[in-house]
Amino acid sequence: MTYCVGFCLQDGLVLLSDTRTNAGPDNIANFGKLHVVAPGDRVIAMMTSGNLAVTQAVTARVLEGAGIGADEPFETLMTVKSMYDAAQLVGDAVRKVFSSIASGQTAQSFFFDASIILAGQIEGRRMRMFHIYSAGNFIESMPETPFFQIGETKYGKPILDRVARYDTPLDDAVKLALISMDSTLRSNFSVGLPADLLVYKRDTQRVAVHERISEDDSYFRTIRENWSEALRKAYRDLPAPPWFD
Amino acid sequence: MTYCVGFCLQDGLVLLSDTRTNAGPDNIANFGKLHVVAPGDRVIAMMTSGNLAVTQAVTARVLEGAGIGADEPFETLMTVKSMYDAAQLVGDAVRKVFSSIASGQTAQSFFFDASIILAGQIEGRRMRMFHIYSAGNFIESMPETPFFQIGETKYGKPILDRVARYDTPLDDAVKLALISMDSTLRSNFSVGLPADLLVYKRDTQRVAVHERISEDDSYFRTIRENWSEALRKAYRDLPAPPWFD
Repeated sequence: MTYCVGFCLQDGLVLLSDTRTNAGPDNIANFGKLHVVAPGDRVIAMMTSGNLAVTQAVTARVLEGAGIGADEPFETLMTVKSMYDAAQLVGDAVRKVFSSIASGQTAQSFFFDASIILAGQIEGRRMRMFHIYSAGNFIESMPETPFFQIGETKYGKPILDRVARYDTPLDDAVKLALISMDSTLRSNFSVGLPADLLVYKRDTQRVAVHERISEDDSYFRTIRENWSEALRKAYRDLPAPPWFD
Repeated sequence: MTYCVGFCLQDGLVLLSDTRTNAGPDNIANFGKLHVVAPGDRVIAMMTSGNLAVTQAVTARVLEGAGIGADEPFETLMTVKSMYDAAQLVGDAVRKVFSSIASGQTAQSFFFDASIILAGQIEGRRMRMFHIYSAGNFIESMPETPFFQIGETKYGKPILDRVARYDTPLDDAVKLALISMDSTLRSNFSVGLPADLLVYKRDTQRVAVHERISEDDSYFRTIRENWSEALRKAYRDLPAPPWFD
């Protein structure tokens, strides 16, 4: 499984992804699920969840043009004119990969599953974030809903529902993303470190932060310990229920 | 949907259940999912999740003997000799209900779904808690795993994973159950108040607390507000990430 969360905020973007994949409990591995292009005029990042063969095929197609036929226009995230075109390109790639394996899928009861968060900005255009589904269709983040999650989304959602807002500063959103990831890591073994973090400041067209956060990252350790301790304290400090004798 | 959580602790039992049921977003209603028998020599409680027609049929059977054929032994939660027998009775009822509707199920692609937490103590016997599945099989809670959840379990799991232990006092377990319920209520519209709370103290054979907690319950409001405020404060107090310029 996977856990990825992306924020599209007033000040910029914060994306965080785990790296664990599993095909059964005896086949666990690490694969990067956060992919970035940043050639100078744009920063576009995507995070993927779902069947790894599917998401890698989609990623290779939209990053490098792998699998684009000679009769098709050659278009990648490096060449698209807008973020909306980028979302369409990725959605289209999902559909192409689906149709290329659809016959095998039916024969082998393979479950087609791909869920993608795509976010970024191209010079002179708006910063945007999209959630692309298995059918290749997509929705866009809005100020009222400034975050998307894919994969194992439920464990890490309550803190986001309580706190995340469009005007949350980027460093606070990094904290939120890490707390949300920590809750997921603790409750679900199929989500695992290291995690990949990307921060983009609006209208800069360059990557502000791109970190791989491992088990021994001292900041993440501090966050995990302080957060656990704060929760314990908060729970101890709550008044006792009035219903006991 | 549903959210129920049950603790089987050193000092006794704490059970909390929501009351919302939905058959689509335009068909939402409230039904009690916590059922208790407490005739004097025993306290046995069950919380149910899944298809309401199924769980009501199971409940009627094990509480009142409804649907027991003339050729079958008449046994209910009032007559069983041990909690293990009670779990077998409930598991058996799940299988009977399943077989009574199995043909209609196949014809109408009805999804058979029932998940039950059963907990209690009979005089002179051990206090126990069981999780009974759709197939009628069951597992028992152990000191290493002192809680079970059914229904929408993920939102409210991280706080339990962090804090719940076998030696958690009963009043603290009530707080934990309410925090866990609050996280679920906020993130999932299909879980709703009022909630039903039951507390049983080990070796007493009587119900210590049985409360219906509604939106305007002042203690639950305090818990919700204090917890939200404590989380906000804890998150503000975390140190800033070191990766920004």
